[in-house]
Amino acid sequence: MINKLVANIKKTNAPIVVGLDPMLNYVPEHIKTAAYEQFGETLEGAAEAIWQFNKEIIDNTYDLIPAVKPQVAMYEQFGIEGLKAFKKTVDYCKAKDLVVIGDIKRGDIGSTSEAYAVGHLGKVTVGSKQYAAFDEDFVTVNPYLGTDGVKPFVDVCKAENKGIFVLVKTSNKSSGEFQDRLIDGKPLYEYVGEMVNKWGEDAMGDEYSMVGAVVGATYPEMGKILRKVMPKAYILVPGYGAQGGKASDLKPYFNEDGLGAIVNSSRGIIAAYKMEKYQSFSEKEFGLASRQAVVDMIEDINGAVFG
Amino acid sequence: MINKLVANIKKTNAPIVVGLDPMLNYVPEHIKTAAYEQFGETLEGAAEAIWQFNKEIIDNTYDLIPAVKPQVAMYEQFGIEGLKAFKKTVDYCKAKDLVVIGDIKRGDIGSTSEAYAVGHLGKVTVGSKQYAAFDEDFVTVNPYLGTDGVKPFVDVCKAENKGIFVLVKTSNKSSGEFQDRLIDGKPLYEYVGEMVNKWGEDAMGDEYSMVGAVVGATYPEMGKILRKVMPKAYILVPGYGAQGGKASDLKPYFNEDGLGAIVNSSRGIIAAYKMEKYQSFSEKEFGLASRQAVVDMIEDINGAVFG
Repeated sequence: MINKLVANIKKTNAPIVVGLDPMLNYVPEHIKTAAYEQFGETLEGAAEAIWQFNKEIIDNTYDLIPAVKPQVAMYEQFGIEGLKAFKKTVDYCKAKDLVVIGDIKRGDIGSTSEAYAVGHLGKVTVGSKQYAAFDEDFVTVNPYLGTDGVKPFVDVCKAENKGIFVLVKTSNKSSGEFQDRLIDGKPLYEYVGEMVNKWGEDAMGDEYSMVGAVVGATYPEMGKILRKVMPKAYILVPGYGAQGGKASDLKPYFNEDGLGAIVNSSRGIIAAYKMEKYQSFSEKEFGLASRQAVVDMIEDINGAVFG
Repeated sequence: MINKLVANIKKTNAPIVVGLDPMLNYVPEHIKTAAYEQFGETLEGAAEAIWQFNKEIIDNTYDLIPAVKPQVAMYEQFGIEGLKAFKKTVDYCKAKDLVVIGDIKRGDIGSTSEAYAVGHLGKVTVGSKQYAAFDEDFVTVNPYLGTDGVKPFVDVCKAENKGIFVLVKTSNKSSGEFQDRLIDGKPLYEYVGEMVNKWGEDAMGDEYSMVGAVVGATYPEMGKILRKVMPKAYILVPGYGAQGGKASDLKPYFNEDGLGAIVNSSRGIIAAYKMEKYQSFSEKEFGLASRQAVVDMIEDINGAVFG
């Protein structure tokens, strides 16, 4: 699957991923009204609204982008109905040939991580049958529990040709509280980066490993170091745009082959129609606004990184 | 809710929690056969089997115990159908007046942690309505992202009278890879413990904080230190029994008031009927075997800790 991600990036010439993190206040009124008319102001109504919202954005952007990253929390908050919309979104994106990165940030002791890995990347056995429950292509994984918690994901990746991105240095403001603490003069995130490199060694695709890393766009100096620590890890870069990360800072996240990083934007794409920059688009044209935001983001990133 | 947890522990005189982490190979054949006859060897059939299994165990143990801890991964691996069984289990346990600790180990950047907190502990807004989607009493939280990732859970706890247990020192073998690293001579888990104490300061119940901690039974020396670092945090202790933690090691996890810790056992209770010790119970009597295992665990813990 890492090979497909690389192929999709080369094909689109767009090292970006669209974060499908729908909040109800991003969803245009006409979509909410239609959903609530059909299902009422219920969890089902909310799930229908975010699904219709996603579908319009995907339809308007899929030909330009290699991948999407639905954030499961935004669906999980609506319970079972929300998770049905998550699953529909995963399936729809895969049918459009997009690589789907489930942003689930799971991680637990061995047998439990195995259940998450099976449920999101692999197949669960029921009697004589097997089923892929959520079936994303990649998921994000939290490393706090160490190798025990990550290894079951790597094993499923190898068996099923899937991939993971391990949290190394996250984009948020307080990420340094623990991640930046110095251990013998070296920050914790660097130790985690070294382990990502190690976990990924025997799970290689053609050029890159099935084990990638999350490094926030908001910490470019650290991105530069981590790029060297994990040469074969694809870096998923959150924090561009709405969170404050600038394209001009992103060059160090890429390798000299022009590959090795994929930059996420969520709000900046899916809620583009709410931004002053895209006010020429009406609320009903939110999909077109998202398309334009994708075009602009690709130009911004490629200009700064490869220009 | 921390007050209710304390009250339930005092009432039952049982500082224990039963981990409802059903694996299909724990479920007796007659339950699987009945579920598959009704729904086939499908995700729905698997979900029905684990639900019926849980129900029998709860019916046979609820009067003896203060709380249960369903591990969401074991349900999530069966997708939407599995999560319906999770929700049914949560609701059923609450109706039996048990405190429900959702073992979800979530944690993300602020807005995303907020969505998890809303979905699992709080209420989500849909138009003019509000809904509690999963509605556990407590959840477990991963601290790797720092205060940003934990604070939204604390805020929802205060608004909704709920609680969290933050992963501090986990019970698994490789937990030391990152958690034990020394920072200025002090291990990372101790820094996390200090933050748990701080996060919990303004979220107090009567005697204990709404912000508790997870500290594995497998590391009693660390438990002793962490007890002192976080005097007001209830400690959820996994790793007893099947994972190797012994009752004789657990005294340091408790405060002098005889409170402050709650010890989890999953496999050792729910799959008791498979153990040599409980072979006098037939497979169909698995609920009774679980009940006996609960009685034995309470005696074991109370004897070692308070004896």
